[in-house]
Amino acid sequence: MSEWELLRRIAAEVPRAGDDCAVLPFRGTNLLLTIDVLHRSADFPPGTDHYTMGWRAVAVTLSDIAAMGGRPLGVALALSAPDPAEPFEGVLRGAEDCARAAGTELVGGDLDVSEELFLISSGLGEAERPIPRSGARPGDRVYLTGPLGRTYLALRLFAQGELARANELFRFTPRLAEGLRLAGSATAMIDLSDSLAHSLHILSRASGIGLVVDVRRIPLLPGLSPGDLEGVIYLGEDYELLLTAPPEALPPGPWIEIGEVVGEPGVWLRDEGTLRALPDRGWEHGGPTPPDDGERRER
Amino acid sequence: MSEWELLRRIAAEVPRAGDDCAVLPFRGTNLLLTIDVLHRSADFPPGTDHYTMGWRAVAVTLSDIAAMGGRPLGVALALSAPDPAEPFEGVLRGAEDCARAAGTELVGGDLDVSEELFLISSGLGEAERPIPRSGARPGDRVYLTGPLGRTYLALRLFAQGELARANELFRFTPRLAEGLRLAGSATAMIDLSDSLAHSLHILSRASGIGLVVDVRRIPLLPGLSPGDLEGVIYLGEDYELLLTAPPEALPPGPWIEIGEVVGEPGVWLRDEGTLRALPDRGWEHGGPTPPDDGERRER
Repeated sequence: MSEWELLRRIAAEVPRAGDDCAVLPFRGTNLLLTIDVLHRSADFPPGTDHYTMGWRAVAVTLSDIAAMGGRPLGVALALSAPDPAEPFEGVLRGAEDCARAAGTELVGGDLDVSEELFLISSGLGEAERPIPRSGARPGDRVYLTGPLGRTYLALRLFAQGELARANELFRFTPRLAEGLRLAGSATAMIDLSDSLAHSLHILSRASGIGLVVDVRRIPLLPGLSPGDLEGVIYLGEDYELLLTAPPEALPPGPWIEIGEVVGEPGVWLRDEGTLRALPDRGWEHGGPTPPDDGERRER
Repeated sequence: MSEWELLRRIAAEVPRAGDDCAVLPFRGTNLLLTIDVLHRSADFPPGTDHYTMGWRAVAVTLSDIAAMGGRPLGVALALSAPDPAEPFEGVLRGAEDCARAAGTELVGGDLDVSEELFLISSGLGEAERPIPRSGARPGDRVYLTGPLGRTYLALRLFAQGELARANELFRFTPRLAEGLRLAGSATAMIDLSDSLAHSLHILSRASGIGLVVDVRRIPLLPGLSPGDLEGVIYLGEDYELLLTAPPEALPPGPWIEIGEVVGEPGVWLRDEGTLRALPDRGWEHGGPTPPDDGERRER
């Protein structure tokens, strides 16, 4: 277990912290609170425009609310930069547009001056029946809300200088509508900010079950090929939702079935009938950086 | 008006953002949401220990809730540092102790890696009758919840190497109990994170009134002399509350009367019968740094 993972586990022992959002019972419902840090060196490749930065900073925190099956009540955003006046207008517009597109609003924030650009968002939401990470049961199936590789592809396009398309991919839509429709039927849910591999392990540990995923059913975005799959699995920052549910309980929707829940704890990839254990790796120290070539050539 | 102030004003036009917390009506009450950024170069002088950093990061966000007359429901804290494992335990302990001392808890957070140490806190609170900045009326008096100069004195002690006492001063207690007692009687309230001078101007503008403050009634902490007053007025990061109220409405408490509300917009200092306008200066770009000597010698 990496030191990073150790820290995350200690942090998860903070009351109510072991989920995408903290869950605070309040007046017959539950409030959801989350905080997310983005900063230039780790999260915004050269070529990311200010509008996209603001949009993404709000989107990542709304994605945490989506992963609990919650509806958003508001987002606060803090901006710190060497000269905050420079990114300010673009960031604010992107943040407001993302919040509005998600049916909520930017309700406040903070401004500061620092050498590196930071954007920190805090989302407030509500869920009468929050979907935890811990409810997966043997017999449930494993689903995604959409194809993977959005950030992986965006990073490739940033590196190639195709900035318009790269920025567009970076401005993902948080899966709030999907999350809300799953409240009451999904048994466990998480967003993929920390990679598919790591997220599967988190669900496995939180629920005390095992997950078997069919390699050939993992959906990739157009523009990606099977050779990208291994990279996509470990990169993280796919803001689709990963969930488990009994198939008969699932409402109609875009759900893509990729595997099933088993009794024995662990995570396996199934490829033409053979199983191999999926290592618990993913986005750790300040990604996003695509895995190196060696890793991508593994398969 | 500085560019900084301009940004703050634009930011204040974000819906519900022109107060210490965003106010979100919810199920017969109001939720309060706030976010605060602290980082090493601006907020933690050399000698600040990790425990104090964690305490203070939580305290500043609870102070915003106090300034609305709210009660806290929970705090989320994000830590980013070159090696987060190093400050982690101390920061977590300090943050938890501060939250517990305030009758709330740390409910989650985020971890990241960056060159500079950042601590960002987001506080969630509730207030049936939030106290705005905009309700001061001519005839109200102006009050503080306690003597000023705590951070000013702490910075001096940090510079002198008296670290134990400096850290202790940095771990202030947010004025939550005082704020709650004032709900229903204070007409306007703000915390002094941005300096007494700037906070007076904010109240003046938000309420459309004027404020006259008696220089000789501004209370200073033991250890400070009248020669420090000008510095204290402009430094900021005093986490006492500044409020206005009709004197007959005020509940019993430690309130220190320092002046009165008048009809003509503006802020004045009264000293032995003469009035002088108080400039709108304070903690701007990444304080805390004590004002230079020239300023302190003015009076």
